[in-house]
Amino acid sequence: MIDKQKIKIIIFDADDTLWENETFFRAAEEEFCNMLEDYLPHHAVTKELYKKEVENVEWYGYGIKSFVLSMIETATSITGNTAGLSMVTRIIEIGREMMSKPVVLLDGVLDVLEALKGNYKLVVATKGDLVDQERKLNKSGIMHYFHHIEIMSEKGVADYRKLIRHLDSKPEEMVMIGNSLKSDVLPIIELGGVGVHIPFHTTWELEVVKHQIDHDSFLKLNSIVDLLPYLT
Amino acid sequence: MIDKQKIKIIIFDADDTLWENETFFRAAEEEFCNMLEDYLPHHAVTKELYKKEVENVEWYGYGIKSFVLSMIETATSITGNTAGLSMVTRIIEIGREMMSKPVVLLDGVLDVLEALKGNYKLVVATKGDLVDQERKLNKSGIMHYFHHIEIMSEKGVADYRKLIRHLDSKPEEMVMIGNSLKSDVLPIIELGGVGVHIPFHTTWELEVVKHQIDHDSFLKLNSIVDLLPYLT
Repeated sequence: MIDKQKIKIIIFDADDTLWENETFFRAAEEEFCNMLEDYLPHHAVTKELYKKEVENVEWYGYGIKSFVLSMIETATSITGNTAGLSMVTRIIEIGREMMSKPVVLLDGVLDVLEALKGNYKLVVATKGDLVDQERKLNKSGIMHYFHHIEIMSEKGVADYRKLIRHLDSKPEEMVMIGNSLKSDVLPIIELGGVGVHIPFHTTWELEVVKHQIDHDSFLKLNSIVDLLPYLT
Repeated sequence: MIDKQKIKIIIFDADDTLWENETFFRAAEEEFCNMLEDYLPHHAVTKELYKKEVENVEWYGYGIKSFVLSMIETATSITGNTAGLSMVTRIIEIGREMMSKPVVLLDGVLDVLEALKGNYKLVVATKGDLVDQERKLNKSGIMHYFHHIEIMSEKGVADYRKLIRHLDSKPEEMVMIGNSLKSDVLPIIELGGVGVHIPFHTTWELEVVKHQIDHDSFLKLNSIVDLLPYLT
């Protein structure tokens, strides 16, 4: 399973692994659906927004600015340009409110970082918008635990390969921990590292992986503190 | 001036140093002013947009998504929410058109990279949006010249200090080349490196430095090819 002697680097995903994030997107989406309920029922607005977000990822990437633009585009398309500009103003405000949220660490994160520091190189690998992710990292108060922080536009196999080269390391020496099977766990296993999945209660549809994973280097845990028996 | 023997790393800014960029922002701004000319004269729209962009940098950072959101916010404020949503749709289209522009290298860039490769470590340090900058780098066809590419949310002294640590180097071993005195030249001189200023014909107001620079480690050139006598 995890061979403690071999592991030198532990990489953490950030959003919904170190701190809460997806919940704020879902709350914003809920408000967005309310704004448009005279035009379409909630489930249909959600579907249109998701379609737009998927289309836009290639152009806008991830993060709050991208989400705001997708909401605006969805609103103009659902209302056939008939809604007032005040709807756009409110959508932009929703984005600013999301940016202003405090960063709340998930239970056990501080204990785990304290227990592992000194014994391993700790790294953050987070996907998203540069400004959003830097803002959250600064607010988090835990940056001093990390040897390196990588903000990535995507988290595929090629992206991790680049990160590993950059860290001057080997996949066999790493454990990657995250809430997304697709972005945090599967690529690192494919490269020969250990992938640890700690599900968050909410997962964005684009990150959902439906098949079961059965691999020697795969571990599923309920909470980040459950890591400690494997690594200390 | 530049002591060739000491220099190991040459860092290039990207936008308006390796390729054209600011011109597309100014053309977009021109169209934006046209859209609003029934409300305010061009110079007043430009002023309002600039004010909004400066306010928003802290929240949105640099790049096209940020520029699009600033245009939308300026339009809603100038029209007092009275314009139709179709104006917002057009602003979003302007952003997409900017993202679709080909990357056109400035004259001499390829010759300079060819002449310097092998003798120095070449690095790109670019400020902006992660997705925008990666897209341009990929389109540019020159990524293979570079040992390292750093996409930064800001280019202040502290940011360069981090980059230099990351490159495992010393400021005295570097030359930084760029079109912005504020972001490319002054911080690196402050740290003890050489700063080379190659002005582009258009400079965004936020990057303008008005005072004269007189420093042993400062060099102003008309064209990137004028670097070669100093470094080869």
